[in-house]
Amino acid sequence: MYTPVDKRNDITIDEARNRIAESMSKLTLGTEKVNVDNSDHRIIAEDVTATHDLPTFRRSGYDGFALLSSDLTSFPVQLKVVGNIPAGANFDRPLVSGEAVRIMTGGYVPDGADLVVMLETTKMLDDDTLEISERQKRDNITQIGSFFKQGDVLLSKDTEINPGGISLLSAFDIHEITVYKKPRIGIITTGSELLHPGEDIVNGKIFNSNGPLIKALCTENGADVFGYTQIKDDPELLRQAVKDLQGKCDVIITNGGVSVGDYDIIADLAKSADELLFNKIQMRPGSVTTAFVDKGIIYFGLSGNPGACFTGFYLYVEYALRVLQKQKSRCIECQGTLNEEYTKTNMYDRILRGQYHIDSDHIEVGRVGGDQSDNLNNLQRATCFFEIPRGDSVTPAGSVLRTWLLPFK
Amino acid sequence: MYTPVDKRNDITIDEARNRIAESMSKLTLGTEKVNVDNSDHRIIAEDVTATHDLPTFRRSGYDGFALLSSDLTSFPVQLKVVGNIPAGANFDRPLVSGEAVRIMTGGYVPDGADLVVMLETTKMLDDDTLEISERQKRDNITQIGSFFKQGDVLLSKDTEINPGGISLLSAFDIHEITVYKKPRIGIITTGSELLHPGEDIVNGKIFNSNGPLIKALCTENGADVFGYTQIKDDPELLRQAVKDLQGKCDVIITNGGVSVGDYDIIADLAKSADELLFNKIQMRPGSVTTAFVDKGIIYFGLSGNPGACFTGFYLYVEYALRVLQKQKSRCIECQGTLNEEYTKTNMYDRILRGQYHIDSDHIEVGRVGGDQSDNLNNLQRATCFFEIPRGDSVTPAGSVLRTWLLPFK
Repeated sequence: MYTPVDKRNDITIDEARNRIAESMSKLTLGTEKVNVDNSDHRIIAEDVTATHDLPTFRRSGYDGFALLSSDLTSFPVQLKVVGNIPAGANFDRPLVSGEAVRIMTGGYVPDGADLVVMLETTKMLDDDTLEISERQKRDNITQIGSFFKQGDVLLSKDTEINPGGISLLSAFDIHEITVYKKPRIGIITTGSELLHPGEDIVNGKIFNSNGPLIKALCTENGADVFGYTQIKDDPELLRQAVKDLQGKCDVIITNGGVSVGDYDIIADLAKSADELLFNKIQMRPGSVTTAFVDKGIIYFGLSGNPGACFTGFYLYVEYALRVLQKQKSRCIECQGTLNEEYTKTNMYDRILRGQYHIDSDHIEVGRVGGDQSDNLNNLQRATCFFEIPRGDSVTPAGSVLRTWLLPFK
Repeated sequence: MYTPVDKRNDITIDEARNRIAESMSKLTLGTEKVNVDNSDHRIIAEDVTATHDLPTFRRSGYDGFALLSSDLTSFPVQLKVVGNIPAGANFDRPLVSGEAVRIMTGGYVPDGADLVVMLETTKMLDDDTLEISERQKRDNITQIGSFFKQGDVLLSKDTEINPGGISLLSAFDIHEITVYKKPRIGIITTGSELLHPGEDIVNGKIFNSNGPLIKALCTENGADVFGYTQIKDDPELLRQAVKDLQGKCDVIITNGGVSVGDYDIIADLAKSADELLFNKIQMRPGSVTTAFVDKGIIYFGLSGNPGACFTGFYLYVEYALRVLQKQKSRCIECQGTLNEEYTKTNMYDRILRGQYHIDSDHIEVGRVGGDQSDNLNNLQRATCFFEIPRGDSVTPAGSVLRTWLLPFK
């Protein structure tokens, strides 16, 4: 009944992440076509190139008058205004010497004209006589193809598109692109202590908070939650739940059942896997966070403690999902200055949930809520993690600490 | 035909934002109920309180044995193991002196027991005899209600919920909350130069890139794009398009038609509004960005130049949408250090699109792509804005500049 505790090789946070990166780089997501309007934050799976030059015509940079620079030899000079080119209009003949046309910003500069004089620097002598008093420094014309030539790469493979990219493709009338499929996630929360929504509270049982946490984090981070189940601590039920997800998911996340104790059913599953990435990390909380790869699926076993589950998600699952999509983690790693002394010490690096504040050009970090890993009170409020290095000395205020700024917070 | 340029009062960026904040604070969004599973990033419209204490029972903090502290008077002491409490199980009678029960992390601590001894510090002498060798420093029990008492505020009104909040509410079996309705946006892009998707390219005409940009930015920033139209530069069409959106939208964004020239149809619209917030800002690009309020709707007139439209969206529209939802802007304002000299000068503050890099604990900023406001090449790549102060001196490398980090980038 009281089986001995497994002997596990503990590794550092960085080593764990390196193993994830190496393993993820061997996996590939399929591709699909999506409408550009619905492509925000999707990852482009092949270069998208310019279908034509941009601009497609010589474009005026200002409101003013288009004319021939060869007419500007002595000043003041008078020119005859022969027309008006509002935005979107063509001009049906070449301009000749002595002529000018009124033109709007972005307007079509007629053949023959090679200069736009800004409206503010001109004077109308009568209804159709323009006077220009001084030499012009610039032609104020945006030349054909000066922004993009046909065939130029607009957005390269493995770029995460954002509204700016959507506007760029729209300028080329491109409305469909090929993107990677979203990573498909299966979530299995394990725990005989877990109630289902709506059940009565009884001694020993709690409502499942980690399942909804992981589901929301996966969705927020651009994954597609394909399956979600809650099962009792039972190796047979777990095997069945995993089996139901195989072939349908890229990533399977289990939660709970990773404690170093009698009921470590995730460890059993990991033992028979193709490749164990890690089953112990030199960190608190969540040292027993586990990752392994089996038949092309990556499995994460997150600790059942809410704080450990939250921390493990950002440091390992978010990282893996991003690497799988050829992206850097959205957790920005930087150095934060601790706002007050932290007295607890540990033989492992401790990752605290905190809040950061950018004070002018410095990043200040501080704790938020309790640091017990079973306390749910700060997951909503945490905007960063910071690392209390292992050792037996107190961490004084002002310490510069490794910090991760959490995305979407 | 050549009407005089309107005289406009120009104001600073901060004054423009202050006017927005003041005006927005008078407007309110309706509320609606949503499922907690689908509430990520919604704004809570009323305090959500704890429906019960948490924990609901005395919970073990560790794997180990629960027992009576009064039994630990001299060491070593032997106790009889009378049972096993796996996760989720109850124990049907009080523990008495001389007894211990095996208990898991998070397990129910039986009545009578007032101490949990960690497994690692114990020894089994035979199948049911436990030996404890040393005095215990802590009881390792999480008391009822020690995290939250019934009635405590879990998430307060005007909080933007995130996955952490979703997990917290799930722990209380709360599945429905009241949130503000998303701001409803109408977008009207104006410009006789705009082609519709699929049309042939002709001289003077371009595809609409700002419309898709604004639409994607609104959606990304949590608004509900209710209407979207593209019209020619025609005051009558604009009036009709606005009329179609009135009563259905909280915010109407027009794009184009704000140039200081003959065809300034947005300015006409602004003239008859209840409250003009501004129609000229001391900034480049986008000095003619306009905002006004009429009959409870806020209108933004963004410049038709892509760079100006992009900048105006983040500095004013994003800001307004957030204030309307009782939130701070997601554009984090800080101080960035310029990576290389910028030589252009201007009588207005210039907002450059750039990229930032957090180098240890400092934020470095630099330009990305061209700074022409009609160039689409850097909207995708820009991750920040930084401000080149007005004046006639060059801005040297190393200058510390006002910077906004852009969200979702």
